[in-house]
Amino acid sequence: MATIEKKHEVVVIGGGFGGLYAVQKLGKAPVNVTLIDRRNFHLFQPLLYQVATGGLSPADISSPLRSILSHQANTKVLLGEVTDVDPVAQKVMLRGQEIPYDTLIVATGVSHSYFGNEHWQQDAPGLKTIENALEMRRRIFMAFEAAEKETDPAERRAWLTFVIVGGGPTGVELAGAISELAFSTLRQDFRNIDTSEAKVLLLEGMDRVLPPYAPELSAKAEKSLEHLGVTVQTKTFVTNIANGVVTMKQGEEIIEVPAKTVLWAAGIKASPMGKLLADRTGAELDRVGRVIVEPNLSIANQPNIFVVGDLSNYPHQGERPLPGIAPVAMQEGQYVAKLIQTRIKGEPEPQFKYVDLGSLAVIGRNAAVVDLGFIKFSGFLAWLAWLFVHIYFLIEFDNKLVVMVQWAWNYFTRKRGARLITGDESLGEVEVDRQGHYHAPAKPKEPIEA
Amino acid sequence: MATIEKKHEVVVIGGGFGGLYAVQKLGKAPVNVTLIDRRNFHLFQPLLYQVATGGLSPADISSPLRSILSHQANTKVLLGEVTDVDPVAQKVMLRGQEIPYDTLIVATGVSHSYFGNEHWQQDAPGLKTIENALEMRRRIFMAFEAAEKETDPAERRAWLTFVIVGGGPTGVELAGAISELAFSTLRQDFRNIDTSEAKVLLLEGMDRVLPPYAPELSAKAEKSLEHLGVTVQTKTFVTNIANGVVTMKQGEEIIEVPAKTVLWAAGIKASPMGKLLADRTGAELDRVGRVIVEPNLSIANQPNIFVVGDLSNYPHQGERPLPGIAPVAMQEGQYVAKLIQTRIKGEPEPQFKYVDLGSLAVIGRNAAVVDLGFIKFSGFLAWLAWLFVHIYFLIEFDNKLVVMVQWAWNYFTRKRGARLITGDESLGEVEVDRQGHYHAPAKPKEPIEA
Repeated sequence: MATIEKKHEVVVIGGGFGGLYAVQKLGKAPVNVTLIDRRNFHLFQPLLYQVATGGLSPADISSPLRSILSHQANTKVLLGEVTDVDPVAQKVMLRGQEIPYDTLIVATGVSHSYFGNEHWQQDAPGLKTIENALEMRRRIFMAFEAAEKETDPAERRAWLTFVIVGGGPTGVELAGAISELAFSTLRQDFRNIDTSEAKVLLLEGMDRVLPPYAPELSAKAEKSLEHLGVTVQTKTFVTNIANGVVTMKQGEEIIEVPAKTVLWAAGIKASPMGKLLADRTGAELDRVGRVIVEPNLSIANQPNIFVVGDLSNYPHQGERPLPGIAPVAMQEGQYVAKLIQTRIKGEPEPQFKYVDLGSLAVIGRNAAVVDLGFIKFSGFLAWLAWLFVHIYFLIEFDNKLVVMVQWAWNYFTRKRGARLITGDESLGEVEVDRQGHYHAPAKPKEPIEA
Repeated sequence: MATIEKKHEVVVIGGGFGGLYAVQKLGKAPVNVTLIDRRNFHLFQPLLYQVATGGLSPADISSPLRSILSHQANTKVLLGEVTDVDPVAQKVMLRGQEIPYDTLIVATGVSHSYFGNEHWQQDAPGLKTIENALEMRRRIFMAFEAAEKETDPAERRAWLTFVIVGGGPTGVELAGAISELAFSTLRQDFRNIDTSEAKVLLLEGMDRVLPPYAPELSAKAEKSLEHLGVTVQTKTFVTNIANGVVTMKQGEEIIEVPAKTVLWAAGIKASPMGKLLADRTGAELDRVGRVIVEPNLSIANQPNIFVVGDLSNYPHQGERPLPGIAPVAMQEGQYVAKLIQTRIKGEPEPQFKYVDLGSLAVIGRNAAVVDLGFIKFSGFLAWLAWLFVHIYFLIEFDNKLVVMVQWAWNYFTRKRGARLITGDESLGEVEVDRQGHYHAPAKPKEPIEA
């Protein structure tokens, strides 16, 4: 009788860029892989702002994990939430289920943070999930609808004021897209308001937008934004968001801006898995809860637990940890996948070295900035580069065709088709409760008129 | 000084096929038009089942009303809900707003009905809105996920049993699409279950599916469905839906089927606007609350209030009222728009005559039935006809390009990209509450792993 050799079990928590690229790189390795995620899809997060502003549909930037990995025979996808990790017994716990591992890769990412002002969340939603994006979309388009109905000029102005907090790539992309909505896409659509009276305010604490980029690109981005109609306010700190008013500090000056739509693109905090790992393994966390990893991306004294992607703080290459962007996560995931294979073979382990392929940020139609290190450029060429890179990476997740067509359509028509206001609270502030016996009996939240 | 002539005010409630076609037909008329809808988009309802089964995204079958009507200068779109109608003062009431009308067109449609068993709604959602479709989608794809996790064989079977109540076009389309998911799209995606063990049950009270169609087409549809793997049960009445069991009656026999996913495609009831109109104008309603209209689609004794589309019961052309399908609504809307114009000119009013252009129902890939009256056919040709008609009508709402590409993609790859499980309760039955201090602090419903 032949003995069946027990295969090396790799468990990956999180199907974002870090986790998914690790899993895919292990596709032909002599291991069993289990990918655990709370969601059934991989999200192409760099384009989430397009969903928030009505340019793309959620499914355009998401791919079912099972579908991506369907032909990877050594891999299982498990939909569920990790409740605990036991590094001694080498097990990951889910509700009513324990998954043993030989190697664990944690790639659960980060969410947005309000720097201790978590109560601002209600007034200023962030952008990390599909649900976040749909909520932003709902608020943005409802604001124009509310302005159309409003008769009080001050209130109308507040409905037409959009404040984006945070001048990083997400904030810049949101501000650019909302400006395009107000000054181009929606201009012909209303009768009582002129959408080009909208005010789009981008607030940044540092002295320039896109602070991680080269100063000349920040300057170009700022110019492009202002050309699009965005008012950029740097060295500006939000001190309060309440009752439709954003309070901010510029130097010693306190400014209050009435704004009904405030979008948060400012801070991050690590997924709770960071703290769980710290408690269970003694891993060291940074200020925002990310796990500080060894040069090979493992946790200190836990050679078979790796942390990759945004949750990982890798400080071994330069003064600052690597940035929380997709290319870092992809390279980290692939590196760990390779390391596992060399370890199994007993070969010398490779060192992780991040190869910086440059940075990109898009501002709007025909406008982007690109920093490849040896060369920096902006404008239409940069925008084409941005387009190419994003379509290229979407290719692997089979959405490219539809996204390309949608974008081509949006580009030439300047339309945005995904402008639906949906969800349970779809009518938000202007929703009307039906009175008396005209209530729809079963489900009052459903549309009555159509 | 020139006198400004007061223009005839037309108010249209509801932006579905009936209302929207009326509005568009009034585009060049010497009238002012106000279109009121609770939603900001027109929904191409015939394709809603595609959203429910992950083939298309909500935005693919929706178009912003403002965008459709953006260049129609005499038309205003108003997002809001009608709370009352005053036929004496000729006003439509919204919250904090009154809209005077000279002519009123009501086109608020129908929703689904449980024949007095409204408590079944929780267990067996219907399909009328985008939110309904996303809820169905969530349940369908969660069922496969739950089956993959389930270890008890009976429970697993229940997760893999899909019961569709109602053998009209919607029920047939849903049953066909779910079969394709189980027997083709998802087959390679799971490791613990064989999705082709799924059971798709289509229940119909009459003696055949698609009862309004010619009997030979019903027979062909049934054959196609069974070829796809659907079990069709006619002369079958659901007597209870509770605790994961559907109880049905076939003749004298009582059958209980454990099924975790039950979808409702059986009955309709009129929008509450029907009862409101009856109370305010004395309009006569039929059994399901639709307004029985005069030969010119107006309400008796209310020559300037018209009811078009699904909410209208037009009994003047044959034994039964016209069916609740898009072509009827479109023709009714356009007819009333024309009638208004001839009335203004003082010309003799035209008679409404519905031109039956035939019926179509799609069963699945390459399979549909078409009844043009003088000719009936089914199979691939019928499917092409179905495809052509739907793309043709989508053209006017500018989604055609993306839908065509998405469909071509789905067709050739047999994939369905819009398989996201989203929403607040996105993880449904298998959701895990985090324990103790690992709770995500601000918004526990958000994903933790990814």
